[in-house]
Amino acid sequence: QHTPSTMGNFFGRQRTAYVRVSLPAVSFVWQIAMIILFGVFIRYDKESDAHWVEYKKSHNITSDIENDFYYRYPSFQDVHVMIFVGFGFLMTFLQRYSFGGVGFNFLIAAFGVQWALLMQGWFHSLDHSTGKIYIGIENLINADFCVAGSLIAYGALLGKVSPVQLLVLTLFGVTLFAVEEYIILDLLHCRDAGGSMVIHAFGGYYGLAISWVLYRPNLHQSKRLNGSVYHSDVFAMIGTLFLWMFWPSFNSAITDHGDGQHRAAINTYLGLASCVLTTVAISSMHDKRGRLDMVHIQNATLAGGVALGTAAEFMITPYGALIVGFCCGIISTFGYIFVTPFLEKRLKLQDTCGIHNLHAVPGMLGGFVGAIVAATANESIYSKEGLINTFDLEGKYADRSLGTQGGFQAAGTCVAIAFGLVGGAIVGFILKFPIWGDPADDNCFDDEAYWEVPEDEETIPPVLEYNNHMIHKHQDIAETNFSVEQC
Amino acid sequence: QHTPSTMGNFFGRQRTAYVRVSLPAVSFVWQIAMIILFGVFIRYDKESDAHWVEYKKSHNITSDIENDFYYRYPSFQDVHVMIFVGFGFLMTFLQRYSFGGVGFNFLIAAFGVQWALLMQGWFHSLDHSTGKIYIGIENLINADFCVAGSLIAYGALLGKVSPVQLLVLTLFGVTLFAVEEYIILDLLHCRDAGGSMVIHAFGGYYGLAISWVLYRPNLHQSKRLNGSVYHSDVFAMIGTLFLWMFWPSFNSAITDHGDGQHRAAINTYLGLASCVLTTVAISSMHDKRGRLDMVHIQNATLAGGVALGTAAEFMITPYGALIVGFCCGIISTFGYIFVTPFLEKRLKLQDTCGIHNLHAVPGMLGGFVGAIVAATANESIYSKEGLINTFDLEGKYADRSLGTQGGFQAAGTCVAIAFGLVGGAIVGFILKFPIWGDPADDNCFDDEAYWEVPEDEETIPPVLEYNNHMIHKHQDIAETNFSVEQC
Amino acid sequence: QHTPSTMGNFFGRQRTAYVRVSLPAVSFVWQIAMIILFGVFIRYDKESDAHWVEYKKSHNITSDIENDFYYRYPSFQDVHVMIFVGFGFLMTFLQRYSFGGVGFNFLIAAFGVQWALLMQGWFHSLDHSTGKIYIGIENLINADFCVAGSLIAYGALLGKVSPVQLLVLTLFGVTLFAVEEYIILDLLHCRDAGGSMVIHAFGGYYGLAISWVLYRPNLHQSKRLNGSVYHSDVFAMIGTLFLWMFWPSFNSAITDHGDGQHRAAINTYLGLASCVLTTVAISSMHDKRGRLDMVHIQNATLAGGVALGTAAEFMITPYGALIVGFCCGIISTFGYIFVTPFLEKRLKLQDTCGIHNLHAVPGMLGGFVGAIVAATANESIYSKEGLINTFDLEGKYADRSLGTQGGFQAAGTCVAIAFGLVGGAIVGFILKFPIWGDPADDNCFDDEAYWEVPEDEETIPPVLEYNNHMIHKHQDIAETNFSVEQC
Repeated sequence: QHTPSTMGNFFGRQRTAYVRVSLPAVSFVWQIAMIILFGVFIRYDKESDAHWVEYKKSHNITSDIENDFYYRYPSFQDVHVMIFVGFGFLMTFLQRYSFGGVGFNFLIAAFGVQWALLMQGWFHSLDHSTGKIYIGIENLINADFCVAGSLIAYGALLGKVSPVQLLVLTLFGVTLFAVEEYIILDLLHCRDAGGSMVIHAFGGYYGLAISWVLYRPNLHQSKRLNGSVYHSDVFAMIGTLFLWMFWPSFNSAITDHGDGQHRAAINTYLGLASCVLTTVAISSMHDKRGRLDMVHIQNATLAGGVALGTAAEFMITPYGALIVGFCCGIISTFGYIFVTPFLEKRLKLQDTCGIHNLHAVPGMLGGFVGAIVAATANESIYSKEGLINTFDLEGKYADRSLGTQGGFQAAGTCVAIAFGLVGGAIVGFILKFPIWGDPADDNCFDDEAYWEVPEDEETIPPVLEYNNHMIHKHQDIAETNFSVEQC
Repeated sequence: QHTPSTMGNFFGRQRTAYVRVSLPAVSFVWQIAMIILFGVFIRYDKESDAHWVEYKKSHNITSDIENDFYYRYPSFQDVHVMIFVGFGFLMTFLQRYSFGGVGFNFLIAAFGVQWALLMQGWFHSLDHSTGKIYIGIENLINADFCVAGSLIAYGALLGKVSPVQLLVLTLFGVTLFAVEEYIILDLLHCRDAGGSMVIHAFGGYYGLAISWVLYRPNLHQSKRLNGSVYHSDVFAMIGTLFLWMFWPSFNSAITDHGDGQHRAAINTYLGLASCVLTTVAISSMHDKRGRLDMVHIQNATLAGGVALGTAAEFMITPYGALIVGFCCGIISTFGYIFVTPFLEKRLKLQDTCGIHNLHAVPGMLGGFVGAIVAATANESIYSKEGLINTFDLEGKYADRSLGTQGGFQAAGTCVAIAFGLVGGAIVGFILKFPIWGDPADDNCFDDEAYWEVPEDEETIPPVLEYNNHMIHKHQDIAETNFSVEQC
Repeated sequence: QHTPSTMGNFFGRQRTAYVRVSLPAVSFVWQIAMIILFGVFIRYDKESDAHWVEYKKSHNITSDIENDFYYRYPSFQDVHVMIFVGFGFLMTFLQRYSFGGVGFNFLIAAFGVQWALLMQGWFHSLDHSTGKIYIGIENLINADFCVAGSLIAYGALLGKVSPVQLLVLTLFGVTLFAVEEYIILDLLHCRDAGGSMVIHAFGGYYGLAISWVLYRPNLHQSKRLNGSVYHSDVFAMIGTLFLWMFWPSFNSAITDHGDGQHRAAINTYLGLASCVLTTVAISSMHDKRGRLDMVHIQNATLAGGVALGTAAEFMITPYGALIVGFCCGIISTFGYIFVTPFLEKRLKLQDTCGIHNLHAVPGMLGGFVGAIVAATANESIYSKEGLINTFDLEGKYADRSLGTQGGFQAAGTCVAIAFGLVGGAIVGFILKFPIWGDPADDNCFDDEAYWEVPEDEETIPPVLEYNNHMIHKHQDIAETNFSVEQC
């Protein structure tokens, strides 16, 4: 119940007072930096440059359809939808943080993809002779992937951080991502097309570590808003479904042309289908009346896609994909039921969206599943050329055995987790400085802090005049012990 | 108005008590069965198997772009969106059954596609030498199509059945679908790329027959919830629009490469556009103030896509497609205005979403439109090779005349309807056993029965304490003849 | 506060009384006209006609994948989503005009695309030897583009016009579009793949001119409904995000195969990303507590895509695209803050959605950006063949210098604006006739006028009369004569 004095604090407190300065300042400085760096480094690659017409002729490419654009653009757009609508709407489930959920997701993804093009470009697409990064459609997909790591981390912090903190989180998140990705994909020569390791395990543990550092002992003061309402749960289902439907595109977007993309899509489709049924089963079992919990349906149904991020392009077999989805639906739902409350109570780790159960653990499992499937690969399953093609065992890796490859895949998973935990802890301490305008403990999960929220005439309960005290806002009313006294 | 005793029944009644056991049990058993059957039967086809690299060489395929994945994946994803977001959100229109609408749609589609891959595989993709089913992108599209039949049936039953009943409905629905599809496409050698017959006519009559058997004379007890609210109607428009926009992909997804897909998309686009205008016209004419009814806009605007499911790949001509849409918009809207109430009153058939008007009748009409267009086809319109190509008149069908083909198309429509009606009646009787946990008559259209529904703080009116009687649920308040009595 | 007499007027006034006649009449007449005109003029083009099988052979086309369908269909579907879900949901932001926003958008787009196929066909795809228009996937994309001009205009008029007025607006809008497009693209030989000039500048000024003519001095009587509520703002974000995500497809949908589509997508992606950050910066700076305004986030974040409509296919360079987005985010947000209120106050121009800031100005700027980029093009940047290819400087344009091309591009922008302003003024006067059933000044922004709006049981607060003070929910009050008697 707000007294006038807490109301004053609510809006006037120092911590959020500088948002008006810091948010525009950071946005401008970083965007200008992007322009300068792009001016110095980024150019069109040969397939998106106007020279393509001549390049095509000189390389005997007979048709424009061979431009990588046509292999990958549909998948790119699906991934793009996952990043902006999928992640964005999944985070609208809180009753009064939908603007922040979808809006800040939008902001940090838009910044992150630019920084990712540079960071990943320096590591992967830099032409050392010209000093330029040449970008095409595959770079855009990878930039979307890269920013997904930071969006996952946002899930743990939803409602508890300021937009400036999120921009800082993304700056470091993308940087760390590019480094761990370079180590895992290039130095260890792992395969991880859908990013079980580099995206989900990293992003999950990165967010958890930050949230652990930023623990708020008095978060219960915002408890009234830390939950959904009917319509916000339906909005969140938009996010869930677009993630679920397009996950086959996510896991196949940058795999090998031909059978690689084809197989990754099939495996992911199957793993996700299987996952839905076990999620429903566990969710229903847990309620004493057998009712389903929207939190599980919104999240755990996606765990199968996460866990197939590495193995989807391998010959995991259709029933193998079903098994992975089967197990991950169970594990993830149990995570929401038991582990998230445990983490909050015992480990002082507040994880708003439960990314532990949707990204961290399934991502880690996906890394190990990939390791096992790689280690058991052989020529009879893949064919000689198929094996080389799938695991890219050429050049200096021509002699690597599949068993060794499996070992490296497992090592890669550990690298991703380590980067997430250590990097997240460091970034968490940076975000703890009292300069970023984070919300007060009694002001979390509330869009009022960073958004001009319309007064809901529509849902405003009647304005009751009582003892000369006008009561307007419904929340207040909901909390007020309101009673009509007897005459 | 709930008295304490009905409130107790509301939550505690025996019929729903076993959901906690039956839903997890069915989900687990069926998912495990899927894994075993997939293990025995399902393998990657040549285009999604790692052997593709070698296959390509040995078959002189010069480019990976010739992999069927690139012909069909964008359409597949559009179809996928229609199944999960389109059907799912179209069913969120009820004020308090949005979770069930989108959530159970998700559940049964995820189960159904797995069972469909097996059922359709046994009939269509089984290699008799190895005893395996080899799947690729076209199988995924067909699985989505197959499950659409059961989702349509769900539309008639929305709010009146339990999730376990829906899983049973889907198990049988997919099975029946695979059989009727085999008869229509293989034995009768009909063309039905967008499924006017095999999907819509079958699914529509299947659902109607089930609903007829499950007639609830006392459904009026749940009348207060059998309608929309403002926001739920907007949610439903998400479903409508994604269905409408992607229907050209639905009807072209599995047609012939090249002109087949191209023409099917154009025809569907046109038929749907035309359909919108006549729907608006009839809807406005029917209201005494000329106002539009969202039910019509949400549903009848799609009838043109249904009715072009067979003929879209034929040379129906652009104006022919417009005419089909024109007529179906009228017929479907009249259906919502006159036929659905008539069916409920006279035939004791309760059809929540009006699938009679959106699927059953337009599907049947689409089958006959296809028959007519096929019967009137000739070489001057199609070219000699185009005719063979479009109607697949090769091998043992090389001598079939187009008139005969038209006759078979008409016969196929009748087969689909017969399968729907007879199959639906049988499945309806199975679903009538009192073991499936269906909701009580006064508890239909209410998510409370199967979902943990959040308390809507946001829309909770002030809790008024009066005469020691706490009033909680807003609906009750809305319906209660609420008055502040005299002192 | 409605008195009984205004209540009577509210529903009964003459102006809306004829909707029941005029809306069906116009819908039917126009749809029948479309069928007749399609019958006379529209045929499948060579790639969608069944003769394709023979055409392919006779033209040595080795693969079906060369059918333009596979180059453009994924982009087409993205554009389609922008037109129906993007524009439609962006206009759901008003608290009680969501049905009209998404529903009328649906209606006029469905009509407009048909008329556009004819109008654009006569100018661009008419085979003079046969007198027929041959359509394929590119025509469908162009029809969607064409109707976008009228949908933009609707944005200025949202909530203030009747559906019949919108159909008239679209009839003339599409006609004007086809003419200005013919002048700009064919006579002036400009390039404008994403339509900064022909779509956005034209559509923006067209809508503004109409709105200026239809100025309502007493619109403040509907002020209570001219704003959003919490959930309607979240719905609008669906529109924003689908527009934002798919804008790369919009700008690349009809550019040259290969590098043209590839580069247009990259540039648009970058311009949009940059735009988000400056929008956030300005929005936050403007509020005294640094809070963001949803109006800005929903709209100004898209200005970068509009402004790259012409230049996206050119070699504007990645950092050039970022700069365009950077500037347009600032300009557009300032427009929402300062210009829209100024226009309303000083120029008597009511612009509901602020299309001045999102389409008119960024479209005009985009035209000039295109002119500059064209004028500075040269062979070292594009390669000799790339230059010819990109600017289509062949045939009678082979000798045109790039400087001249830049001049023509600038001239094209002026033509688009002139067509918008003059055409809009004329159409505005036509729409001013008191025969179109537009809503009364106190009845704007209200779905009640043209839709059967469900009673929102869910959100109805108890109607309490207290101290003879009627308390307001419009619907309830409108229908219930409910009162709590005095003690």
